[in-house]
Amino acid sequence: MQYRRLGHTGLKLSALSFGAWVTFGDQIGRDEARNLVASAWDHGINFFDNAEGYARGRAEQVMGDVIADLRLPRDGFCVSSKVFFGAVDDPRPTQHGLSRKHVTDACHAALRRLRVDYLDLYYCHRPDPDTPIAETVLAMDTLIRQGKVLYWGTSEWSAAQIQEAVAIARAGHLHLPSMEQPQYNLLHRERVEREYAPLYADPGLGTTVWSPLASGLLTGKYNAGVDAQSRLGQQQLGWLKELVLGEPAAQRLDKVRRYTAVAAELGCSPAQLAIAWCLRNPNVSSVILGASRVGQLEENLGALDLQVDAAGWERVEAAFA
Amino acid sequence: MQYRRLGHTGLKLSALSFGAWVTFGDQIGRDEARNLVASAWDHGINFFDNAEGYARGRAEQVMGDVIADLRLPRDGFCVSSKVFFGAVDDPRPTQHGLSRKHVTDACHAALRRLRVDYLDLYYCHRPDPDTPIAETVLAMDTLIRQGKVLYWGTSEWSAAQIQEAVAIARAGHLHLPSMEQPQYNLLHRERVEREYAPLYADPGLGTTVWSPLASGLLTGKYNAGVDAQSRLGQQQLGWLKELVLGEPAAQRLDKVRRYTAVAAELGCSPAQLAIAWCLRNPNVSSVILGASRVGQLEENLGALDLQVDAAGWERVEAAFA
Amino acid sequence: MQYRRLGHTGLKLSALSFGAWVTFGDQIGRDEARNLVASAWDHGINFFDNAEGYARGRAEQVMGDVIADLRLPRDGFCVSSKVFFGAVDDPRPTQHGLSRKHVTDACHAALRRLRVDYLDLYYCHRPDPDTPIAETVLAMDTLIRQGKVLYWGTSEWSAAQIQEAVAIARAGHLHLPSMEQPQYNLLHRERVEREYAPLYADPGLGTTVWSPLASGLLTGKYNAGVDAQSRLGQQQLGWLKELVLGEPAAQRLDKVRRYTAVAAELGCSPAQLAIAWCLRNPNVSSVILGASRVGQLEENLGALDLQVDAAGWERVEAAFA
Amino acid sequence: MQYRRLGHTGLKLSALSFGAWVTFGDQIGRDEARNLVASAWDHGINFFDNAEGYARGRAEQVMGDVIADLRLPRDGFCVSSKVFFGAVDDPRPTQHGLSRKHVTDACHAALRRLRVDYLDLYYCHRPDPDTPIAETVLAMDTLIRQGKVLYWGTSEWSAAQIQEAVAIARAGHLHLPSMEQPQYNLLHRERVEREYAPLYADPGLGTTVWSPLASGLLTGKYNAGVDAQSRLGQQQLGWLKELVLGEPAAQRLDKVRRYTAVAAELGCSPAQLAIAWCLRNPNVSSVILGASRVGQLEENLGALDLQVDAAGWERVEAAFA
Repeated sequence: MQYRRLGHTGLKLSALSFGAWVTFGDQIGRDEARNLVASAWDHGINFFDNAEGYARGRAEQVMGDVIADLRLPRDGFCVSSKVFFGAVDDPRPTQHGLSRKHVTDACHAALRRLRVDYLDLYYCHRPDPDTPIAETVLAMDTLIRQGKVLYWGTSEWSAAQIQEAVAIARAGHLHLPSMEQPQYNLLHRERVEREYAPLYADPGLGTTVWSPLASGLLTGKYNAGVDAQSRLGQQQLGWLKELVLGEPAAQRLDKVRRYTAVAAELGCSPAQLAIAWCLRNPNVSSVILGASRVGQLEENLGALDLQVDAAGWERVEAAFA
Repeated sequence: MQYRRLGHTGLKLSALSFGAWVTFGDQIGRDEARNLVASAWDHGINFFDNAEGYARGRAEQVMGDVIADLRLPRDGFCVSSKVFFGAVDDPRPTQHGLSRKHVTDACHAALRRLRVDYLDLYYCHRPDPDTPIAETVLAMDTLIRQGKVLYWGTSEWSAAQIQEAVAIARAGHLHLPSMEQPQYNLLHRERVEREYAPLYADPGLGTTVWSPLASGLLTGKYNAGVDAQSRLGQQQLGWLKELVLGEPAAQRLDKVRRYTAVAAELGCSPAQLAIAWCLRNPNVSSVILGASRVGQLEENLGALDLQVDAAGWERVEAAFA
Repeated sequence: MQYRRLGHTGLKLSALSFGAWVTFGDQIGRDEARNLVASAWDHGINFFDNAEGYARGRAEQVMGDVIADLRLPRDGFCVSSKVFFGAVDDPRPTQHGLSRKHVTDACHAALRRLRVDYLDLYYCHRPDPDTPIAETVLAMDTLIRQGKVLYWGTSEWSAAQIQEAVAIARAGHLHLPSMEQPQYNLLHRERVEREYAPLYADPGLGTTVWSPLASGLLTGKYNAGVDAQSRLGQQQLGWLKELVLGEPAAQRLDKVRRYTAVAAELGCSPAQLAIAWCLRNPNVSSVILGASRVGQLEENLGALDLQVDAAGWERVEAAFA
Repeated sequence: MQYRRLGHTGLKLSALSFGAWVTFGDQIGRDEARNLVASAWDHGINFFDNAEGYARGRAEQVMGDVIADLRLPRDGFCVSSKVFFGAVDDPRPTQHGLSRKHVTDACHAALRRLRVDYLDLYYCHRPDPDTPIAETVLAMDTLIRQGKVLYWGTSEWSAAQIQEAVAIARAGHLHLPSMEQPQYNLLHRERVEREYAPLYADPGLGTTVWSPLASGLLTGKYNAGVDAQSRLGQQQLGWLKELVLGEPAAQRLDKVRRYTAVAAELGCSPAQLAIAWCLRNPNVSSVILGASRVGQLEENLGALDLQVDAAGWERVEAAFA
């Protein structure tokens, strides 16, 4: 495994990490979850990503159960949670947003579900236009000073919002946000490569990127169309389908078909190639892998060993031109 | 139910909330208290207002008992307490005022009585000329950083006092007051509408208003005079009677009689109309309802559905001209 | 009882308070200690003064035991401790001075001995030239933020040292010292009346004064000389004898003899008169009384009711001219 | 024993202190460890130095066990730990460096192993180029405010790095580093005497120096060469051998041979003389002694009583010219 600093912080995460999204507490059972975490750990993965909203908290429960069962040493792994954008169907207004109440309650709930004393990383899962950024920054700072959180960050915030949080934290002698969790893949790169660009130098933002395979699109498995059993075919993930296929679907699938052909010519799997492409960006701290089977995880971990030369990468880029 | 942000904070309170004042631990028994909280919760109320001084702490004890019994989820409801202006007949000087000692002791006592780990809202019940505002602001900030309080505010402070607290908090990087609890109704509107006006934009003060019915006066039940059994007739609430009827009583009752006539013409109860009138003010975050019977609470909740047009509101205003 | 604000703070102490010095854990037994605390409480005294150094911690142990036994309500009384200048014969260097270690350890030890969760007042018993004032101020601030101390102050510091502490606290947004515990009586008034004068307005220093009777001298009981059984005759209090009789002894005793004559003419006990004289100074927040018998305490409490006119006070002053 | 302030702090350490390095949990058994701590304590030593990296935590375990067994009073002794540069062969990246995670985890682990509630001194064992100094300073400050650490410092940092930490702490109202733990002996004096010179006045840095005997070299025991059983002959301490003998070995041993001759002429042991030489420097707060036998410790403690006149010290210096 390769390790990278989380931006300018001193925390070193595995370049490939493991996320519970979609699978834990939902698509897969407890045994498979255990096998996945065990395999990830054995391969050197030290960051396990989660959120209050993944399977309405069950993803954290399963992960906490499995980590306790495997007796992973607390000082050897990192675990995250995210607040807000979780139980989208919970009618209680205090269950949403980034108010001090929800940020605090959600942290305590995640600590209980994950069975840990502190969260290594704690994200604002989405920006909340109904809460002043100062309130959230202060709440995060308080959790860090109480020892319940080590690093706080954001997910899918605009660069301007992050910069506002940084300015507020600096003025008030508060802990700065340390990382972002943006989507990043060959089909979705604008934000990571352009919008956040100034933030890598100052305040030294780290990124833990999600969806390196564009929800499976880059494996080529949708080249012949989306069926109902696949992730993109699932009703409750309709928002995701739209996001992934937002571009005129035909045009987008054309690109992917060209890409899978390039992968075949380079002699590697499209999934490995897509993950390896993410790792080429030095501003990516860790690429979060999801998996529902150990075999799938192990295949994706192969991205670390992929040898592609400059000409090869040029052909990859050309497929998406 | 409709939810509103508490001023500029990210906390969303039900537009109508439920207060224990006068009833809990005093006029009504434990069973009726349980029914009231259950009904309020079922109707979407998420803010339960209390104070150390309500029935000398018994109001908090009953509410804590009932909330525990009903197993309301801690992250779904908000509960408040208020310090000072409570046990007016307690001779101990440390039981009064807004010293660090009393602010801290009263918080701990409220947490015990209400059986919660933190207070969502904690108010200074009245200004205390014998304690520097800086001492109180620092004490509140410490409680927030310790996780025992989420939002602190004031009740019936002057705008100048609130502004002094804000200035002190800003200079010392401390938590600002987030809300006021003023009296607000058709007979008592100057402070909310004029005095506090500049505070809604900066620092973004929220208000949880009390006495929307002017202690029952606006229901029309005193139109024929105050009798000894009613709230205003009770000896220990003499200060309230004076406050409500301060204006030459005859003149004030005339206005109310005109008002109840308007309500009859508009085809709604005077109580619902008075509550709906409070809700029209966008600077009101939540209107606190008291009730001694579930039927009374449910009737008052009807204010949310009232349809009154502009001409109707003009007639209401005219009654009090 | 009369209550006074502790300087500009919001804390109200009884104008006469009760100190454990010399008596608790030493001259008197546990039963007499219990009677004294009970009597003090019954007479409205709400401040019980103590220090780690009084009888090497035994004074705090006895007081904690007695307060628990009497079930005094924690929010009704105030208790103090003082750090440093205690176990003068303890050879361990970490048992002395105002280092962060000793300030912190001594606080924890006092909490255990006094059986309370927090100290209302915590004093630096003497200045420590070997510790930077900034270190002590920071340590005190940390204890306050942790909820273990409410107000911190000093005892027998120079005005310049207090002002340095205030300046450091202001620059670092830390809690300011709130009070001093100086000696103050008819024979020792310079510091309270002159040196500290500027501090009463800013930062609003309170004073809890000790030795209103000049260790008994002002009762007239040494008018005929100091015998070995009396406090001033005790070997281990040699420093005190020197302090009290520092002035050419004969000259000093002459003044006292004149004073006791005046008291007799005014028809009151010299002790009551001396205590009442301290209370005339509005910058005195509380006068600490020591007593080894309930009768003695009750007599001294009579100072509150003493009626002396301006001419009477002039004669008192004249006795010490 | 003689006691010295730790730089400008109010903490007084024994001028000679006892370190667990190399011996505890490794070369010596639990009984000998107990005898050593008991003897050190009986001779007035009040500072016991340790680190997470000494024998991979076992040194702290043994020391914690022994201190508990001997019932040393917690307010009478000081104990340290150091984070980073410990388990050099642990592959987990979160076990290294000065990230908030490792600084925090390592503190908690040391508290458990040493069986104490707080560390008196907590050092960054080496500088970590992969962690911003600000992150470490903030993490240390948080531990101090939580009461888990009293004084934090560094070990073998450059003066520039320490000054950066001081500047960051001052700007953010954070606790400053209080001490350094550098190597200091007759063969290695540049850093303590020249590089750190400006830091003694401001911020008032204290030093707890290690290796007063240059790993035994100054006892003269290697005058005839390094054998495999000695500390310098041990394989895992190869880095140490290089450090000690870095200078052309022959030349360095020549100096030591001249030095041992001077010691003989002065009538004292070379070890005592070397320790006494360290103590002559007023910027040295404490000289850490290691020992594997009580006899050795007691002999070294004799350094406190050594009488060497100015001419004697000149001859010592001349040996190393």
